[in-house]
Amino acid sequence: MTEATTQPDRDDVAGVGPQSAMPVGDSVGIICGGGSFPAAVASAVVRSGRRPVMFGIRGWADTAIVEHYAHHWIALGQLGRFVRLAAAEHCQDVLLIGTLLRPPLRHIRLDWQTLRAMPRIVRHFRGGDDRLLSGVVELLEEHGLRVIGVKDVAPQITMPSGVLGRHQPSARDRADIALAFELIATLGPFDVGQAAIIADNHVLAIEAAEGTDNLLARIAALREQSRVTTPRGVGVLVKAPKPAQDRRFDLPAIGPQTVAGVARAGLAGIAVAAGETIVADAAAAIEAADRARIFLVGVGQERRR
Amino acid sequence: MTEATTQPDRDDVAGVGPQSAMPVGDSVGIICGGGSFPAAVASAVVRSGRRPVMFGIRGWADTAIVEHYAHHWIALGQLGRFVRLAAAEHCQDVLLIGTLLRPPLRHIRLDWQTLRAMPRIVRHFRGGDDRLLSGVVELLEEHGLRVIGVKDVAPQITMPSGVLGRHQPSARDRADIALAFELIATLGPFDVGQAAIIADNHVLAIEAAEGTDNLLARIAALREQSRVTTPRGVGVLVKAPKPAQDRRFDLPAIGPQTVAGVARAGLAGIAVAAGETIVADAAAAIEAADRARIFLVGVGQERRR
Repeated sequence: MTEATTQPDRDDVAGVGPQSAMPVGDSVGIICGGGSFPAAVASAVVRSGRRPVMFGIRGWADTAIVEHYAHHWIALGQLGRFVRLAAAEHCQDVLLIGTLLRPPLRHIRLDWQTLRAMPRIVRHFRGGDDRLLSGVVELLEEHGLRVIGVKDVAPQITMPSGVLGRHQPSARDRADIALAFELIATLGPFDVGQAAIIADNHVLAIEAAEGTDNLLARIAALREQSRVTTPRGVGVLVKAPKPAQDRRFDLPAIGPQTVAGVARAGLAGIAVAAGETIVADAAAAIEAADRARIFLVGVGQERRR
Repeated sequence: MTEATTQPDRDDVAGVGPQSAMPVGDSVGIICGGGSFPAAVASAVVRSGRRPVMFGIRGWADTAIVEHYAHHWIALGQLGRFVRLAAAEHCQDVLLIGTLLRPPLRHIRLDWQTLRAMPRIVRHFRGGDDRLLSGVVELLEEHGLRVIGVKDVAPQITMPSGVLGRHQPSARDRADIALAFELIATLGPFDVGQAAIIADNHVLAIEAAEGTDNLLARIAALREQSRVTTPRGVGVLVKAPKPAQDRRFDLPAIGPQTVAGVARAGLAGIAVAAGETIVADAAAAIEAADRARIFLVGVGQERRR
């Protein structure tokens, strides 16, 4: 049994020339998980003059977002199918974006290429998310694809350094922010903890499998039960990539929904790693933050240690 | 303004003699927070031949538990009143036990002794729980009281080393247990994380302000939402004192309710620090664990590194 080859001649692609407005050789394959971030990335890719080709992961990706552009649907586990389609679409650069929770095994459809890689995938699957994703990237690169990151193709949707919007962190907020970055860095070897909530020097919550929205909802609930008693307007949500995290994918992300969650949790603001965090729908996020009197700050690497 | 002194002559106390069945000099003051652990400690104190005097913290302690023994009610902040009552009851040894969440300021009643200590209390209050509790202990000791721990007075209610009940951890469980103890030790400097849940090498949850029951409920909920997809019967709850934690109080605790939560979360079992974890209602906990096919294991210090 061999793979059918639909791989086009690379010379044909190059022949289109890099100067045309939307050269097919300048296509970017976007493997889309759930949530709105794939839309933000695709639109940034278009603005940068390249052509997005969406590869929606069935069961996760948003149909409207995927089908707004040239697209294909793939199931998890269809490595061979994806590699063939990416080649046919002239996507040498591919990018993974969007929510993709550790999938239940029953959702996975295995094709021949994936079956061959199974022993390695299983090994990666037993580790944390970082290891799983590194395994996938390694497999894609062995098939001649180049896995790029949001920063490479759409730097404008990552958080800049400094304050966005009208509100500033206080000195106490800044101390909480520094402690949270330190906590996240310390948790790195355990492949966990992209986010933490600290209020007045007291660690209220550390993110693991629950995701940031749940993390924030927990603080709102604990406050109602008087299990969190710091006054409203004290405390920060901090998000940062895990130290070992491959920056090409799975960047932390915030958006208007994060701001709403922070407001409900009664915190003072949000701090994220500048340049390494996606801000989805930045205008709406800033407007919501200004209205809720919440600060938004990007902290550069040099100031996180 | 001076404190009225109700302190009895210590010689009178000593005169009762240390050999009588329940000498007043052998009284133990038990400062009771919420939950059932104060009852377990008081009954162990009686079995050890000493006399428990309950100091129920208003708003937290269970009335039936407190009033089953010689008792007084105190409010948080009544340091002077507590010191006087402890002296009148001949309790030189005092012990703090039970749930006492970081209280909202409006629940605190300040007396003169406490007011004088306020600047220090406020300083401690800004840190994590360990620092707050160390501050309280320091204050009590300055008033001539000796703060003792559950291990000193009721070692029989702490977890022994080894397996309790019928079920054994697998090799995979043991690997998860080792990783969780390491994670908890790493979090020590942040004064957070007495518990973690790890399944097949993947960190699912880290406890901060929410408490263990909420931690377990979260995993059950995430499983229903398919955000936790490890099979049922895989994964461990691990509890251990934070490395910097004063072992005289605030020991981690498990009981039948913890077993029920672990069963609902679909985990394989529970591992705790042997000798440094209270097991409330051990017989019922073991029976529930056996029925739910859950293991219970105490891990000695030497095997936790």
